[in-house]
Amino acid sequence: MSQRGPDLPRRVTIREVGPRDGLQAERPLPVTVRAGLIDMLSGAELPKIEAVSFVSPAAVPAMADAAEVWKMARAREEIAYSALVPNRQGAEAALEAGGFSSLQAFLAASDGYNQHNVGKSVNESVEDVRGVIEAAGAAGVFVEVSISCAFGDPFEGEVAPERVCEVAERVAELGAVGVSLGDTTGMANPAKVWELVPMLRERLGHVRVNCHFHDTRGAALANVLAAMEAGVDAFDASIGGMGGSPFAPGVNGNLPTEDLVAMLEGMGVETGVDVMSLFTAARMVEGMVGHRLPGRAWRADYPERGWHAPAPIAGLPGYVESPEG
Amino acid sequence: MSQRGPDLPRRVTIREVGPRDGLQAERPLPVTVRAGLIDMLSGAELPKIEAVSFVSPAAVPAMADAAEVWKMARAREEIAYSALVPNRQGAEAALEAGGFSSLQAFLAASDGYNQHNVGKSVNESVEDVRGVIEAAGAAGVFVEVSISCAFGDPFEGEVAPERVCEVAERVAELGAVGVSLGDTTGMANPAKVWELVPMLRERLGHVRVNCHFHDTRGAALANVLAAMEAGVDAFDASIGGMGGSPFAPGVNGNLPTEDLVAMLEGMGVETGVDVMSLFTAARMVEGMVGHRLPGRAWRADYPERGWHAPAPIAGLPGYVESPEG
Repeated sequence: MSQRGPDLPRRVTIREVGPRDGLQAERPLPVTVRAGLIDMLSGAELPKIEAVSFVSPAAVPAMADAAEVWKMARAREEIAYSALVPNRQGAEAALEAGGFSSLQAFLAASDGYNQHNVGKSVNESVEDVRGVIEAAGAAGVFVEVSISCAFGDPFEGEVAPERVCEVAERVAELGAVGVSLGDTTGMANPAKVWELVPMLRERLGHVRVNCHFHDTRGAALANVLAAMEAGVDAFDASIGGMGGSPFAPGVNGNLPTEDLVAMLEGMGVETGVDVMSLFTAARMVEGMVGHRLPGRAWRADYPERGWHAPAPIAGLPGYVESPEG
Repeated sequence: MSQRGPDLPRRVTIREVGPRDGLQAERPLPVTVRAGLIDMLSGAELPKIEAVSFVSPAAVPAMADAAEVWKMARAREEIAYSALVPNRQGAEAALEAGGFSSLQAFLAASDGYNQHNVGKSVNESVEDVRGVIEAAGAAGVFVEVSISCAFGDPFEGEVAPERVCEVAERVAELGAVGVSLGDTTGMANPAKVWELVPMLRERLGHVRVNCHFHDTRGAALANVLAAMEAGVDAFDASIGGMGGSPFAPGVNGNLPTEDLVAMLEGMGVETGVDVMSLFTAARMVEGMVGHRLPGRAWRADYPERGWHAPAPIAGLPGYVESPEG
């Protein structure tokens, strides 16, 4: 560590997952609104956007009609859009829709959560990942694999970093170009990041590592900083912090994209994202879902750039009167 | 930086400021309740607690009756309690009340905020700090000085780190044993921390440095991590994140004590604080102030220790129904 802090990546790539990971926890919204959200986020110049998921509409009603949403969205050439797919069938649906730079497969590092999430063992899910990679490979599309519960499992508690590396190795052998370490439970902390990430890089030097932190315990940005110190330069985030039910007990909360970009920009780390567009988007997203979201950065004044925080939307659930009120 | 992350302090001292910095932003509460809050926090084994402030009750009604609150609280020998005082007169009132391990004086690094906060220039406030140090010194009580707007000013924008060091040097020459860098506006980020803290340590090696981060933009724990990497081992935090109006636009929000302790404990950094007592206290404090507070950690499940998040208090302002509701 130098006198002025550790070496960090000079540029970070942010993948916006609000239209997928965010909306899937909300009441189902019209196709037009979901497409409009993608367009609004494209306008903020986010380099990567996870636009839709081709999962069972019975299991995740808010994600139904993925092909229609994607068809309506005005995709931009300079942005890499992805779709989440659970298996070969989902991959085929996404490939038929077309236009995705990559597909995102997923499985958990732990059997407990994997069984809960998709009713399968991790071994069985590895076969689903294989199906996705084979289908995508035949179409010349890359696959990244999200490994959920990479820092802890809601049923089993701690998850050994060696276990995460084993799962990552298995999907890498199948042909995944990258892995995303999902902190599904918000159990990550900087010490765990500094343990897992270097171990993974040592064992899988050629595989790209993305981190997907949840702010469940409030430490998401501290974990981003720790991961950057370990060399990670790719992060997921969700506009406004949409995802899970941030106001219900015990559950997930995504890292708000605008909080992440605001911190990185303040530090001089390039993201290419227009933070002021994100602030406006975050506020609009509260109106879209109809309740307060956990994102903080857009509520702050930025005297260094003459930005004054807008008032909250009157009457929106989740806001409280000021003590003077 | 080693393969497994940078060297960090193995132990961190947390000063709880909820009874003072937290409550001053809320509707005035009865003396008995304020004393009970101090006792509850003492029970969580926090090593330092800022209990009261001897400021003008006309200016800060919620802080009136400091001597009565302090007399009613059951102070513990092993805990260092402090009182915030604005000037010699306040120091004399605190010394008359007795029992404080130290007094906390304050001024801003920037004239803009200092004028707004106390109607004086920084130079005039230095004279108030001198009065506090002289009065306390005569009684054998140490003084630490809070320097607000150390990372930015709401009126002037950026505040140069050299300016913060100058102010710190002036109060150190007067006899302050330590300074607390207050991120009043939430404008700190890890890069700013890595710039200011080493500069301050170089110029004032003998003065203790405490950091008081606000979570206004969501980066408080990232800033704690950065400060620890720069060698800081003393932090302020407020139970539940009380302080400012976290749900109003543009304003402050203190770092929730329970979020800080949860992260540090997860990392294996010692605090001596009982995190489970803090979780219960954070929930009770929401009932006390009558609205939702920003703290997150107590709302999470901790499967690694068998802790399941309690339900929120029914009907409390600031909570939203789940999307399924």
